[in-house]
Amino acid sequence: MAPVFEHQVSVRWRDTDALGHVNNAVYLTYLEEARDAFYLRVLGDPIYVVVRLEIDFRAEVRHADRTVRVEIAVERVGATSLTTREILRTAGGREAAEARVVTVRWDQDAHAAVPFNDEQRARLAEFAASPRTP
Amino acid sequence: MAPVFEHQVSVRWRDTDALGHVNNAVYLTYLEEARDAFYLRVLGDPIYVVVRLEIDFRAEVRHADRTVRVEIAVERVGATSLTTREILRTAGGREAAEARVVTVRWDQDAHAAVPFNDEQRARLAEFAASPRTP
Amino acid sequence: MAPVFEHQVSVRWRDTDALGHVNNAVYLTYLEEARDAFYLRVLGDPIYVVVRLEIDFRAEVRHADRTVRVEIAVERVGATSLTTREILRTAGGREAAEARVVTVRWDQDAHAAVPFNDEQRARLAEFAASPRTP
Amino acid sequence: MAPVFEHQVSVRWRDTDALGHVNNAVYLTYLEEARDAFYLRVLGDPIYVVVRLEIDFRAEVRHADRTVRVEIAVERVGATSLTTREILRTAGGREAAEARVVTVRWDQDAHAAVPFNDEQRARLAEFAASPRTP
Repeated sequence: MAPVFEHQVSVRWRDTDALGHVNNAVYLTYLEEARDAFYLRVLGDPIYVVVRLEIDFRAEVRHADRTVRVEIAVERVGATSLTTREILRTAGGREAAEARVVTVRWDQDAHAAVPFNDEQRARLAEFAASPRTP
Repeated sequence: MAPVFEHQVSVRWRDTDALGHVNNAVYLTYLEEARDAFYLRVLGDPIYVVVRLEIDFRAEVRHADRTVRVEIAVERVGATSLTTREILRTAGGREAAEARVVTVRWDQDAHAAVPFNDEQRARLAEFAASPRTP
Repeated sequence: MAPVFEHQVSVRWRDTDALGHVNNAVYLTYLEEARDAFYLRVLGDPIYVVVRLEIDFRAEVRHADRTVRVEIAVERVGATSLTTREILRTAGGREAAEARVVTVRWDQDAHAAVPFNDEQRARLAEFAASPRTP
Repeated sequence: MAPVFEHQVSVRWRDTDALGHVNNAVYLTYLEEARDAFYLRVLGDPIYVVVRLEIDFRAEVRHADRTVRVEIAVERVGATSLTTREILRTAGGREAAEARVVTVRWDQDAHAAVPFNDEQRARLAEFAASPRTP
C-alpha cells in the first residue's frame, strides 16, 4: 500500500459565508494548502499552476469543525503535469469533498512548464493512488 | 439560438496572489457571482449549494484586466439539480476558464433540496446551452 | 468645496461570513479597491503600501446591499506618505464605516518608498478634505 | 506580570497578493483568528462584532514565513465593549503589526450587545496589558 500524504488546515472564521458554513471556493484553498505542502516535501518547491480541477462536494464544513484534513495521492504523472486525487475530511473523518486536480510545474521567469526529472518521478511514484476496488 | 446569460465581475487587487495573477480559487468566486445573478434573475433567489464542479483553467487573469465576464448556459435540469456550463472571459474576450457546475436549490431552514416548479423549468429552458458542434 | 473621489464596489457573496453580513476584514478590501482607483486616476499607478489604518465600523453591510460606495478625501500629504479619509457607504447612503489610512508609494524593485513630485502634490491637493465643522 | 494570550496562525498561499506578500486586509483575519480563540477560551464563545480598529503595519509577512503568532492583552473592559492590544509577529519574532481593537459581545438573535458578567470581567482582568514604560 502506497502511503497517502496528509496535511491539516485550520478552519478560519473568514472561510464561512452567510449560509453558516465554509464557502465552496474555500475548499479549493484548503486543497491548495495541502498540495503546496505536498509539492514542497516531494518536489522541493510549491510553484505550479492548476490546469484542471473536478470536485464533488459531499458535506458541509463548519467553523466549529476547527480543522480539516486533506489526503493526497498521485494518480498520474505526465511529462510536466501531475494528476492528484485529493480528499478533504473534517476533523471527525467525514468526507467533505473529493477532487481530481491536474497541475503543471511552473517556471515563473520563463513563464513555461517544467518537466519532472527522474528523481522527482520516483518520489511521486511513492504516493501512487491505490487502484479503486469495486 | 438560446440566449446566454452574461454577468460582469470586477477584478479586485485582493484576488491576486504572489504569482502575480488571480488565484485559482477566486475563479470559483467569479463564477459564483455570475451564478448568483443568474439564479436571482431566473429563479427569484440565489440560495443553492454547489454539489459538483469541473473547471479547466485556460488563461491567467491579471489585476490589469480590471473586469471579467461570465457566460452561463443551462445544460440539464433535474428534479432539484441544475447543471450549468460557465465560461469565464477576460474583458478582451479571451477564454480564461470553462466550467460545468451542478447546483441544488436549497432551503436553509429545512436543510433540504427544493424541487424546481414548472414555471422555473420553463424559464431555465430559455437559457439552454446550444449543442456543441464538432 | 474640494471634490470627493467616489468609487463603487460590488458586494460579493464570498464577502459575507456566518454572522450573515460582510466580514470586517473585507471592509478593508472595499477601501483598497477605491484607493487603488484613486491612486490610478490621481497618481497614475496603484502601487503603494499601507502603513497605518484606523477604522470605525458603524453599520453592517449585507449581501442584499449589492453595492457599496467609497468616498476618499486627502487629509495630509507628506514626503512619501499620504493620509486619506475614507468613508464606506451602503448603496442607500448609510455610513457603514469611516477610516483614516496612511499609505506610502512603493517601488517594488527598489523595495523603497517613492516621494511625490510637485505635479502629484498639486493633483492630490484637489481632493483635500474639507475641514470638519463642529 | 499578567500573562499574554498567544495564538499561532498558518500563512496560506491565498493570503498573498501580487506584491508578493500577505495582503494588508489579511492581517485583520490573522488577528480575528487569534481573537476568536481568546474569546472562546476566556469568555466561552467567539460571538462579537468589531466596532473600531487601529493598526500599524510594521513589516511584511511572506508565504515563506509559514506561520505568524498573535499576542493579545486586555487594555480596557467596558459594559459591553472590550479593548485589546494585539501584536502580530512572524515566526521569527519580528513585529509585523500592532493593533488596538474594540469589540462588543453580540447576541445574534436579539441583534444587541451583551454585557460582560462579573466572572467574565475577572477572567479578562487576568490578561490585563502591562502599562507601557517609556
